[in-house]
Amino acid sequence: MELYETPLFTSEKGPLYLRLYKSIAAQITRGQLHAEQKLPSKRALAAQLGLSVNTVDGAYQMLVAEGYIEARPKSGFYVCRIAKMPEPPSPVPAAPAPAPQAQNWLYDFRTSGVDPSLFPYKTWARIQREILTEHPDYLNLGERGGDLSLRSAIADYLHEYRGVRCTAEQIVVGAGIEYLVGLLAGLFRDRLFALEDPGYGRIYRVLQNNCITSVFLPVDQNGLEVDRLDGCAASVVYVTPSHQFPTGAILPMQRRQALLNWAAAMPGRYIIEDDYDSEFRFDTRPIPALQGLDSCGRVIYISTFSRIIAPSIRIAYMVLPPSLEEAFRQRYSVYSPTVSRFEQNTLRRFIQSGAFYRHLNRVRVAYRARRDLLVELLTGMAVQRGVTVTGAHTGLHLIAQVRGELSEQALVQAAAEQGVHLRGLSEYCLGDRSGLPASSVVLGYSSLAEQALREACALLQKAWSAPR
Amino acid sequence: MELYETPLFTSEKGPLYLRLYKSIAAQITRGQLHAEQKLPSKRALAAQLGLSVNTVDGAYQMLVAEGYIEARPKSGFYVCRIAKMPEPPSPVPAAPAPAPQAQNWLYDFRTSGVDPSLFPYKTWARIQREILTEHPDYLNLGERGGDLSLRSAIADYLHEYRGVRCTAEQIVVGAGIEYLVGLLAGLFRDRLFALEDPGYGRIYRVLQNNCITSVFLPVDQNGLEVDRLDGCAASVVYVTPSHQFPTGAILPMQRRQALLNWAAAMPGRYIIEDDYDSEFRFDTRPIPALQGLDSCGRVIYISTFSRIIAPSIRIAYMVLPPSLEEAFRQRYSVYSPTVSRFEQNTLRRFIQSGAFYRHLNRVRVAYRARRDLLVELLTGMAVQRGVTVTGAHTGLHLIAQVRGELSEQALVQAAAEQGVHLRGLSEYCLGDRSGLPASSVVLGYSSLAEQALREACALLQKAWSAPR
Repeated sequence: MELYETPLFTSEKGPLYLRLYKSIAAQITRGQLHAEQKLPSKRALAAQLGLSVNTVDGAYQMLVAEGYIEARPKSGFYVCRIAKMPEPPSPVPAAPAPAPQAQNWLYDFRTSGVDPSLFPYKTWARIQREILTEHPDYLNLGERGGDLSLRSAIADYLHEYRGVRCTAEQIVVGAGIEYLVGLLAGLFRDRLFALEDPGYGRIYRVLQNNCITSVFLPVDQNGLEVDRLDGCAASVVYVTPSHQFPTGAILPMQRRQALLNWAAAMPGRYIIEDDYDSEFRFDTRPIPALQGLDSCGRVIYISTFSRIIAPSIRIAYMVLPPSLEEAFRQRYSVYSPTVSRFEQNTLRRFIQSGAFYRHLNRVRVAYRARRDLLVELLTGMAVQRGVTVTGAHTGLHLIAQVRGELSEQALVQAAAEQGVHLRGLSEYCLGDRSGLPASSVVLGYSSLAEQALREACALLQKAWSAPR
Repeated sequence: MELYETPLFTSEKGPLYLRLYKSIAAQITRGQLHAEQKLPSKRALAAQLGLSVNTVDGAYQMLVAEGYIEARPKSGFYVCRIAKMPEPPSPVPAAPAPAPQAQNWLYDFRTSGVDPSLFPYKTWARIQREILTEHPDYLNLGERGGDLSLRSAIADYLHEYRGVRCTAEQIVVGAGIEYLVGLLAGLFRDRLFALEDPGYGRIYRVLQNNCITSVFLPVDQNGLEVDRLDGCAASVVYVTPSHQFPTGAILPMQRRQALLNWAAAMPGRYIIEDDYDSEFRFDTRPIPALQGLDSCGRVIYISTFSRIIAPSIRIAYMVLPPSLEEAFRQRYSVYSPTVSRFEQNTLRRFIQSGAFYRHLNRVRVAYRARRDLLVELLTGMAVQRGVTVTGAHTGLHLIAQVRGELSEQALVQAAAEQGVHLRGLSEYCLGDRSGLPASSVVLGYSSLAEQALREACALLQKAWSAPR
């Protein structure tokens, strides 16, 4: 019996039964042991190979389980008919290099940054530990839309700080705004969406990936040009009223009214209100959300904790109007939640303990100081014919227009040569770029503290003064 | 000037400037202050109301920001033209009652349960704290597909334990299998999917929600009847080879071969291998994954840490074949990750420290003992004409067939009357229920320890012995 001779068996590492299994399996697939051939009994083979019967039994069990051999009652083990194995697989080719990582900038004005020095490590770590150790039940899968206790805490916060009127049941918690918008897309199949342009390219992409067509509506210094909605066939509009992304424009009351009236004018029209960055309104109290003004249940309010807590803690949420709750429940009834219950409840306790509100005030003060400094540094720059700042009232980025000969591209390029990363306003265009203010760049300052801002602006001054 | 008289102002709570703002805004929307009307200067109004100029300034700033009034240089503040506000909103109707919570069962044989007593609280809490405090950079958004360090740890685990051959870059980490399948659906628009029946209803639902049509292929005691694939037009098949869900059948080597040959026979064919529960193979070593046998790059391997760690920690992953990586990257390049980086890296260190492997062995031993006990209790039951157990070699549930007069429905009902929750096999049918073994129930035992199993089975014996 050749089982012993095979190099496979003798050269193999690992437990004996496994080496024996591999040896026999290989001989079967190579055809050295042919179909219908009877194998020696466990006892016989054990004796022959000087192995324990248990070892042979382990190997035979595995061969049976995988269908290499079959056990025939009162007869023994027989080789099954196996299709020829493919050629030994060629090693998996290395994956194409992943998308290039962001290069190492001296200073990065990206809009998604966060300043680790502002994160409440102590409190978060304490609550995190309490939640983990006090609540073994949190190991079990929670409610699809998020734990009701967290949703209640969010509802209270939204009511007090954003003027949003909703029950906890209307709230859906999910792993990021893109995920939630993907769920909404399912409710609005075959609808035409209207998006702000310039705007939030990711949302456009998510809708595209969900086979939803979008039209782009222009944005001026007062945000979305709402009256354009009547001219198009869109029945759902995605809008950022508190702080238009990226221009920072605030949608004035007249347009808010017009928007709500547009939605109310026809059945099935909806407004998705992305309340992006509204917590960071520096010069007046935050404007109440559109959702709170809506008496017809046509507003879907959506926001995230990325800016207040951290982008890497993936907790976003939306408020569904009652008219959509049932359709949503039916469509997604079998879906599991997408946010860890431990983090859900860490956040919940963080909010309910009041630490969240203290943290919010703390970061608002810190960011306001940075905003003030950045505006001062930019407007004081002796470059070209001067710098105009807009969109600085709310949120953690602003628009700087450099009056002079340098094109937007030249501004970005010159900054990059100094090791400063920033994006041009036109990079946020979804469609038509005409009518966009010229030579404008978007500066996110959330990740840059005072000293960094001073140094970065010194480099920008150098970059933009140099003759091109 | 009537600003002072309005009850709104006098009755309101909150900071003075806010009360003043609300009072003026209300009068403008009610038309008591008409468009183009000039407001008193800040100083004048402050004097008139006995308020500080700052207070009035705060209110005017907010009114300007919201577009109620406008400031005209060298002239003053004027009321803007505002569309009539809608009737004061009726209170939001309470949401319909949420889906009924699972009733309080004495014993629950659900397949998604977890036993908190097996969770490694100490280790997990320690690593969690280390990660939070040592890595401020983890506050920033990580890579779309998950942190590469975690993906490497997963690749090593998969290679050693499941025979999966892949690079870290081929792995995509996401918040649950349903989320990942939703992403895959986007890559396979207009394809016909083949699903196992009985099978994983959630996957069917996710595909449906992504506008993908599925056909159902029957499952026998050896798992998916692979030869049925040739008879249908499906080009993607979703299969659970190591432990068919829910029957627990193991796909034998011949069928694995046939499946791989089917995929290789035509360009664009893919196999989605859901390796559900494969870590819990009790009677032999785990069968290597289909992915490891695939030399043509047609297998998408998908799995989750729900069973090993906890269902509420939402970390699943899939391994893309090189042929799909570029399409995936292009389609989802702008998507953010869906799993908190802190939990990603807690898991990563848990794996790399070796604690994961110790934990895995510990729970495997515990679950095996439960499996053995449950099989013993069930097969020893003096009910009807006896109980046959199948699908118990792998995973954390098994199928019990009660030979006799009681229908599946009667078995489930009788158990429920004793406070024991279990589901009938036919509840997992997606399409045709014929050809399904009669009077069979699915028993998940992951959340029931020894004593609970004994008591639950005593109740089942009572339930199933009773004359109907």
